[in-house]
Amino acid sequence: MISPRSRIPVAILGATGAVGQTFVRRLADHPWFEIAELAASERSAGKTYAEACQWLEGDMPESLADRRVVLCDPASVGSPIVFSALDSAVAGDMEPAFARAGAVVLSNAKNFRMEADVPLVIPEVNASHLALLERQRANRGWPGVIVTNANCAATVATMALAPLSETFGLKQVVVVTMQAISGAGYPGVPSLDILGNVVPYIGDEEPKIEREMNKMLGQVTNDAVVPASFAVSAHANRVPTEHGHLVCMSIALERRGSLDEIIQAMSAWRGAPDALTLPSAPSRALVVTTSPNRPQTRRDVGAGNGMTVTVGRIRPDPIFDVKLVALGHNTIRGAAGGSVLNAELMVARGLIGAT
Amino acid sequence: MISPRSRIPVAILGATGAVGQTFVRRLADHPWFEIAELAASERSAGKTYAEACQWLEGDMPESLADRRVVLCDPASVGSPIVFSALDSAVAGDMEPAFARAGAVVLSNAKNFRMEADVPLVIPEVNASHLALLERQRANRGWPGVIVTNANCAATVATMALAPLSETFGLKQVVVVTMQAISGAGYPGVPSLDILGNVVPYIGDEEPKIEREMNKMLGQVTNDAVVPASFAVSAHANRVPTEHGHLVCMSIALERRGSLDEIIQAMSAWRGAPDALTLPSAPSRALVVTTSPNRPQTRRDVGAGNGMTVTVGRIRPDPIFDVKLVALGHNTIRGAAGGSVLNAELMVARGLIGAT
Amino acid sequence: MISPRSRIPVAILGATGAVGQTFVRRLADHPWFEIAELAASERSAGKTYAEACQWLEGDMPESLADRRVVLCDPASVGSPIVFSALDSAVAGDMEPAFARAGAVVLSNAKNFRMEADVPLVIPEVNASHLALLERQRANRGWPGVIVTNANCAATVATMALAPLSETFGLKQVVVVTMQAISGAGYPGVPSLDILGNVVPYIGDEEPKIEREMNKMLGQVTNDAVVPASFAVSAHANRVPTEHGHLVCMSIALERRGSLDEIIQAMSAWRGAPDALTLPSAPSRALVVTTSPNRPQTRRDVGAGNGMTVTVGRIRPDPIFDVKLVALGHNTIRGAAGGSVLNAELMVARGLIGAT
Amino acid sequence: MISPRSRIPVAILGATGAVGQTFVRRLADHPWFEIAELAASERSAGKTYAEACQWLEGDMPESLADRRVVLCDPASVGSPIVFSALDSAVAGDMEPAFARAGAVVLSNAKNFRMEADVPLVIPEVNASHLALLERQRANRGWPGVIVTNANCAATVATMALAPLSETFGLKQVVVVTMQAISGAGYPGVPSLDILGNVVPYIGDEEPKIEREMNKMLGQVTNDAVVPASFAVSAHANRVPTEHGHLVCMSIALERRGSLDEIIQAMSAWRGAPDALTLPSAPSRALVVTTSPNRPQTRRDVGAGNGMTVTVGRIRPDPIFDVKLVALGHNTIRGAAGGSVLNAELMVARGLIGAT
Repeated sequence: MISPRSRIPVAILGATGAVGQTFVRRLADHPWFEIAELAASERSAGKTYAEACQWLEGDMPESLADRRVVLCDPASVGSPIVFSALDSAVAGDMEPAFARAGAVVLSNAKNFRMEADVPLVIPEVNASHLALLERQRANRGWPGVIVTNANCAATVATMALAPLSETFGLKQVVVVTMQAISGAGYPGVPSLDILGNVVPYIGDEEPKIEREMNKMLGQVTNDAVVPASFAVSAHANRVPTEHGHLVCMSIALERRGSLDEIIQAMSAWRGAPDALTLPSAPSRALVVTTSPNRPQTRRDVGAGNGMTVTVGRIRPDPIFDVKLVALGHNTIRGAAGGSVLNAELMVARGLIGAT
Repeated sequence: MISPRSRIPVAILGATGAVGQTFVRRLADHPWFEIAELAASERSAGKTYAEACQWLEGDMPESLADRRVVLCDPASVGSPIVFSALDSAVAGDMEPAFARAGAVVLSNAKNFRMEADVPLVIPEVNASHLALLERQRANRGWPGVIVTNANCAATVATMALAPLSETFGLKQVVVVTMQAISGAGYPGVPSLDILGNVVPYIGDEEPKIEREMNKMLGQVTNDAVVPASFAVSAHANRVPTEHGHLVCMSIALERRGSLDEIIQAMSAWRGAPDALTLPSAPSRALVVTTSPNRPQTRRDVGAGNGMTVTVGRIRPDPIFDVKLVALGHNTIRGAAGGSVLNAELMVARGLIGAT
Repeated sequence: MISPRSRIPVAILGATGAVGQTFVRRLADHPWFEIAELAASERSAGKTYAEACQWLEGDMPESLADRRVVLCDPASVGSPIVFSALDSAVAGDMEPAFARAGAVVLSNAKNFRMEADVPLVIPEVNASHLALLERQRANRGWPGVIVTNANCAATVATMALAPLSETFGLKQVVVVTMQAISGAGYPGVPSLDILGNVVPYIGDEEPKIEREMNKMLGQVTNDAVVPASFAVSAHANRVPTEHGHLVCMSIALERRGSLDEIIQAMSAWRGAPDALTLPSAPSRALVVTTSPNRPQTRRDVGAGNGMTVTVGRIRPDPIFDVKLVALGHNTIRGAAGGSVLNAELMVARGLIGAT
Repeated sequence: MISPRSRIPVAILGATGAVGQTFVRRLADHPWFEIAELAASERSAGKTYAEACQWLEGDMPESLADRRVVLCDPASVGSPIVFSALDSAVAGDMEPAFARAGAVVLSNAKNFRMEADVPLVIPEVNASHLALLERQRANRGWPGVIVTNANCAATVATMALAPLSETFGLKQVVVVTMQAISGAGYPGVPSLDILGNVVPYIGDEEPKIEREMNKMLGQVTNDAVVPASFAVSAHANRVPTEHGHLVCMSIALERRGSLDEIIQAMSAWRGAPDALTLPSAPSRALVVTTSPNRPQTRRDVGAGNGMTVTVGRIRPDPIFDVKLVALGHNTIRGAAGGSVLNAELMVARGLIGAT
């Protein structure tokens, strides 16, 4: 593994929002990266970060409170790596602008995830998809690149499914999510909508889940991803939890496996070897619990510092082969933490910063 | 329809618990029934109802506050109809004791639901199952009867499925529940277990859902119920809502139907004609909403005074034929209100109280 | 009491917001008033009410779903009574415009509450303050009037204090509120701010509580209100409850009273006689509970159909004379329901609609 | 400061309950103490800790999962230091039994807190009260000692008041608490009682708050504590938060101070010097925030790893001198963490373990 000799300067685009703040928390003491620039819209540019930002969780890192927020524009931002927490309304224009300006863009937005030449990456699952980058540069003619991570619920489900996909193949997956409020950003979900309530609808969430999982679990051939062909039926629900997306899945496999073999495949799974030693990688990307009533959102969301997906209740399914519950942290593994891990993977593979 | 000339005296067994209190609320001003006896365990017997009971919701009916609680025993209870809110630990002995003593027992407990000669009834769905009562009396040799209503989540799912079962037949159903805390009674779920949390496990709930739906949607032939043969896969979750079980279902039908035909079947469904005019029957047992983000637990749980099941988000399923969301009130339609409706049906059919 | 011969047409200003919707619920089946006009901003005017409005609680009255929303402007609204749910940002201009056009304006906004010629009224407490209206018309030279109701937390506290004020006089009151999220309207409080949290600050709330209570408990002399002179120290907190403001108060009295005398004064209090028979008046404006752990927000907020304030835990105070807990419904008694009661009082006193 | 040469073996009494578990978390990697014994009632004794205990938060330390729980009895427990998480029902007999057997007992129970010869200690506030121990040994004739920490809400309030007591003296304090559910242990508060609710009553809590603060802020003279004489009026409320007791206080001082002087006194306060360098001591025992809407329960409860009390909204009080909000972690600073800090203080002062 390559590790950088000095900390690489990075920018956070959309640094004042909820995901932007999670980036700040993940990067404030990062061994490889140094927050050089906090970028946001004109409303915030020029203010100190403390002035521009309604800090949502814990304490703002002291060293950043007085940092001036810069305008989110390639002309104002010079870092070679930019972490994008931009809303999809602006990411569509802004992220390519940064790639054209030469930056490595790690994006959380939905805009480019399904583009044929843009990798949609979870390091432990499909690091090989980074092979798309050559084609992206050739296609787009830009010196930078865009690398995306998936929808938060799709990420949790995909990590739980990866070992089954690798060992047995997947045929059909019904996935029902119970998603935390932080997934909607800030101000996000009005409290009158969710206190003591379940809202069985999240705008545009089910299509994302249904298509992104296929791409991530697809194979790279000749610089193209051939999506996996299993069918996905998603039901997305918002529930009154703070962090953590819990998913119930009923799964049909391509090749039969006994319950023991299935549990064994999931327990033994580690993912791509070079992902395991990255600074943000948890000791186990996937943990299988045998506790009868776990994972639980509030109790397990912090596993692996928010980077571990916990799977439990693996049991036979009367219709399909197996059913189970999976839980992951939506703003860490499913958003900012996932982007940072992608950037670390790219550094380790020499795709960023020949230092 | 037969309606009684004077109010029929009824007893509530387990009157001090959460379900017992819901019985009290449903029966306090009932046009056909009069609460004659509040029965509970030795701990409560002899006390006034106000002393014996930690009243949970709204105000205790004034007329009952000073009523003496009697011992839950056929020797102490003389009403011809008894509504049983007993825990399964005691219902197994106590409910037959009342049937042997000649009472019509309306039971919420799980103990006898799956017995071949015990009807498991939702009036609008399977009133015909009351035909089992003759066989029950013959088999058991008791003058009374036991009539059960189903698990609360199974009730909600079954009511939503009934029109599809009748029109298209059912092949497979994946049902994922998000169940309210009141389903666990009082004290029930510790707040430390559920505040800001999802618990993806409810003891013994999934097997109940998986088998009770088949019985309720089965056919009566020669005084026996032939269960429906569709496969059910259930995932039961506890969420921090007060009342209301919300279920997401993916459904495979026996016979194809277009989405319009499916919606039409559900919208047009009314259920057994003689159930519709019972005192506790809502104006519509099933309401189909076209609002994109409904039903919601807190906002729709009170529909039809807690007796209506609301269905929404009826849409194509990438794996099966259709997916949808249904919501019903667990302690009303799914428990006490369901039992009362069953008793009303029996009165209307002349099976109780030839007055 | 005068009661109108036919229903008086009324308009609701700001009909699409949270308080506007509560007005709709309170007025939909009102015996004296008929919703003639639903008025809102340009964004909503011209749409049907169903289109313009994200309905928040229960079902929208069917008869209004297709009603066209009119522009909130005296030129577009002709009803003799207007209930204003307007935000203070627009109420300052709009409410006087309606008064100039001849309307009786029942306002929930803060803008005119503390004006010397504007009554701030709770019918049971200070109906006599309506005497200000003559002076208001004289001062302002408008044919209509503005009558206000108080801040929601101030209303709850004032109703609990009224009997003590009348019997013993008040010297000092420390009032600590625990206020529901619906007090902030919709979208209002972001769920990330309040789920599992207490926010010990509500913008501009403490000053309102500290001054409005003195005005309401003041005396009318020569068409002026002499505010009561007791000192108030308020602490306002937002807590994760849906409806209901709970207040803890420590109270110093002008004249000593034993605990029994205090409880007796509160239990016996009924308020202004002609307020008690108004259509929206609860059977008891103030209820004293002796239950050791009541009132509780969720369990008691619905008392008197949301119009009753429940007081409990009346006990000696180690510093002052007495401490207690009071609870009232913030969007009903503390907002829309209070305005409707004020309008009813004015009708009953012949101040509106000489029919 | 004395620090031990090797880790001192300690026992946790009541190790399976909620507070016991917090002890385990605080002591699992403690530099001075080593968990030698996990003690509990007969129901748990003999089982492994994993079997005996329903672990509530995060993961149980792996090294303890297989540890055998011993019977909570001096005959079975040999550690020189015992941390007692015992319920008051058994602490009254058990804690003296351990002191008679020679143990240093750090108690969270209420039983001995107000005894004249038992110190009630917050190290930064009243470390001098440990002087009572000589008298305790003389009085009781036992080789061990009992040292107590206060009620959780009293601890938070007292820490916020300590600087004002030292600088200005205290005359009167109204304290209104909003307390988290974890304060009631496990299973503790039923979710039906607290979801979306406020319960304005906690059994026996207000008397504890009203008397313990006086003792802690009193002076030691001739081996006796002369309690402070300020009057306290407490209102205790349970709110739906997980951890953290938030208190609103209105405070009358003995000697006037400007708002600036008051803020300065609180900001500058550090407490007893030898408490500041203890292993569990936070970098600041008291933090004053100037953010207008802080402290907030969920957002600030983790300050100082749960050992810091955060104070905010320091502002003039219309009745008294000053009002403010304080927040502390009830199961850490207000319970287990406080006991551990007391033990550390005793080690540092040479009162435990002459190693």
